[in-house]
Amino acid sequence: MKKVLIFGSTGSIGRNALEIIRHDRNNFSVLGLLVNKNIELLNQQIREFHPRYVCVVDEAKAEKIREYLPKKVKLFYGKDGVREFSLLSSDISLMAIVGISSLEPFAINIKRTKRMALVSKEVLVVGGKLWKNLIKDNSIEIIPVDSEINALFQLFKFVDKNQVKKIYLTASGGALLNYSKRELEKVTVRDVLSHPTWGMGERITVDSSTLVNKGFEVMETHYLFGIDYQNIDVVIHRESSAHAFLEMRDNILFGCFYVPDMKIPISFSFYYPKRFLPIRGLDFSFESRDLSFNQVRRNDFPLLDIVLSSARIGENLPIVVNAADEVAINYFLKGRIKFLHIHRAIENIFNSTKKHKVRSLDDIFFWDNWARLKTEEFLKKLLVN
Amino acid sequence: MKKVLIFGSTGSIGRNALEIIRHDRNNFSVLGLLVNKNIELLNQQIREFHPRYVCVVDEAKAEKIREYLPKKVKLFYGKDGVREFSLLSSDISLMAIVGISSLEPFAINIKRTKRMALVSKEVLVVGGKLWKNLIKDNSIEIIPVDSEINALFQLFKFVDKNQVKKIYLTASGGALLNYSKRELEKVTVRDVLSHPTWGMGERITVDSSTLVNKGFEVMETHYLFGIDYQNIDVVIHRESSAHAFLEMRDNILFGCFYVPDMKIPISFSFYYPKRFLPIRGLDFSFESRDLSFNQVRRNDFPLLDIVLSSARIGENLPIVVNAADEVAINYFLKGRIKFLHIHRAIENIFNSTKKHKVRSLDDIFFWDNWARLKTEEFLKKLLVN
Repeated sequence: MKKVLIFGSTGSIGRNALEIIRHDRNNFSVLGLLVNKNIELLNQQIREFHPRYVCVVDEAKAEKIREYLPKKVKLFYGKDGVREFSLLSSDISLMAIVGISSLEPFAINIKRTKRMALVSKEVLVVGGKLWKNLIKDNSIEIIPVDSEINALFQLFKFVDKNQVKKIYLTASGGALLNYSKRELEKVTVRDVLSHPTWGMGERITVDSSTLVNKGFEVMETHYLFGIDYQNIDVVIHRESSAHAFLEMRDNILFGCFYVPDMKIPISFSFYYPKRFLPIRGLDFSFESRDLSFNQVRRNDFPLLDIVLSSARIGENLPIVVNAADEVAINYFLKGRIKFLHIHRAIENIFNSTKKHKVRSLDDIFFWDNWARLKTEEFLKKLLVN
Repeated sequence: MKKVLIFGSTGSIGRNALEIIRHDRNNFSVLGLLVNKNIELLNQQIREFHPRYVCVVDEAKAEKIREYLPKKVKLFYGKDGVREFSLLSSDISLMAIVGISSLEPFAINIKRTKRMALVSKEVLVVGGKLWKNLIKDNSIEIIPVDSEINALFQLFKFVDKNQVKKIYLTASGGALLNYSKRELEKVTVRDVLSHPTWGMGERITVDSSTLVNKGFEVMETHYLFGIDYQNIDVVIHRESSAHAFLEMRDNILFGCFYVPDMKIPISFSFYYPKRFLPIRGLDFSFESRDLSFNQVRRNDFPLLDIVLSSARIGENLPIVVNAADEVAINYFLKGRIKFLHIHRAIENIFNSTKKHKVRSLDDIFFWDNWARLKTEEFLKKLLVN
């Protein structure tokens, strides 16, 4: 029986993970659930999965749930609560917190869990450098859950890394792939959130449409598998069925495929090295299946290259880019700025940040905070609402 | 320096293999070349590659080449010559003889070579049962060169076989894929030989268009990897870029891809376990690459199911089916029968053969001969020319 901690249980990934546990109670039990503020859903999850610990980040919401809690459940809340919750020991921890908030729980819990199933890519995007040696030594077990990186994890188990020439990450291209530059100027929140293949959280859906998400995945690939940036490429693949390819030195490629449903890679991260999928209806079928592959229109989606440039420079650059992205997306989702202002916010922070060494979590939080303030300042001049 | 024997050096595969050796003289030398009767090309190959041994199956042709041979080259010829040539010891033997003639050289040389790079699928189609235990024990090294089976060989090196649910072999569908039943009745030799993606020998090109070839590959898969027939499926893939897929128990698939050029799998079979391709210009590109996958129209291409039925029955059935196929294709290529008469010849032999145990090469040759005579008898009634 494996004890599972879920960081972010009411989000899309958290709910999918619980769906898997629901179908295999003999092998998995829920040790703890952490949520930001959706206490209604948390309440249902508590009643169904009987965790021993819960954590509510939002203190006001924590107060509200306290009276409904079964006696046996211990409640953590607020910043300190997140730290205490992160100190729990687990067999599997699913880290699925949106944004940079995942950083501290990851840093604490990675020493307490036997397996970190990692969704929160910011852990690597802004903190990759800090865990680089731990990953290299294999002294921590991280299984990436993000479909493309999960596919790479599987493919890299196969091959001699020294014989790999190039890595291809696929990108659906998000909701706006075929929009012209002119059309991109008028894009609404609704347009952006209509992702063609994946049902995901709001931030990652916006990041998919700007290809910022794909830039972040290139960074995950770099840090998790130790691959040089010049050997990682992105290819547009509309159907989200092929997730990644390895091209070998002899021009032979290996690809990893599954239907675009996150239950598959989550399940992989739970059962590995066994292979089992406790849920039906996720069959891949070759019947009249067309798979298309195209180059990225880099001129129309310039953020991919900005993110990749920040990745190559490293240190504080990816941190400020991520922060500007988070802030700008929040503004956009609230209708305060236009879609292309996300571009401008990221361009602005990238161009106005000098490189500084990053040596600790505190350094990361410093640059994150700095960039948030700077980006808010910048966006205030652009407000439409 | 690896010593290479090439059985069938003037065919399409043999020429491609020599092209690889031409580009890597430091690692490979040609020990011997065997041809059926193309002595003009053999002569050129001798002058370029300086083999110590050559073998010409056709005795009359052997006489003609004798006077031109450099003194150091030993000539074998005829049936006995093939046997003696097959007794040579090599580091790599490339078995690329068309049809059942490959059987005896394989049986002899498999004990003399360190690595059998196998193209001649009849070795497994008609003789699979005889080598089953040797393959299972890993007491012989066979690397399949045929692109689909080669892809499977590579994929199976990756995975735990017990976790594989299903195998997909791709089929280009050959030249006649989109012909209606009515159009198939009027097909000419030229139509059939216009293969859309692969440049190959004549017999395999016809076998591709009837899907008999794909049925034979299913048998190769069964014998080489010990997979039940019910777990092997065929999928039409027009672009011949994806060669095979493994579907795992958790609905995750792995695929193997390369441009349709036999130099790639031949090279793989030469360098394995290293990966190297000494020839340029065979890059796989994702730029605007569409890959299509479709079901086989089994009603219009009934030979696939007949071949698979003969495979499931086993023993002498695949032998007689292969023999009828070889005879009928010869008749068709000479313009003596219509294309659909190939179907009828195979149906006829399948329906009129009772199952008998096969225990030896002699048994195989008996049934092969029996079926050839019977098929010629049958086809004589259908002659158009």
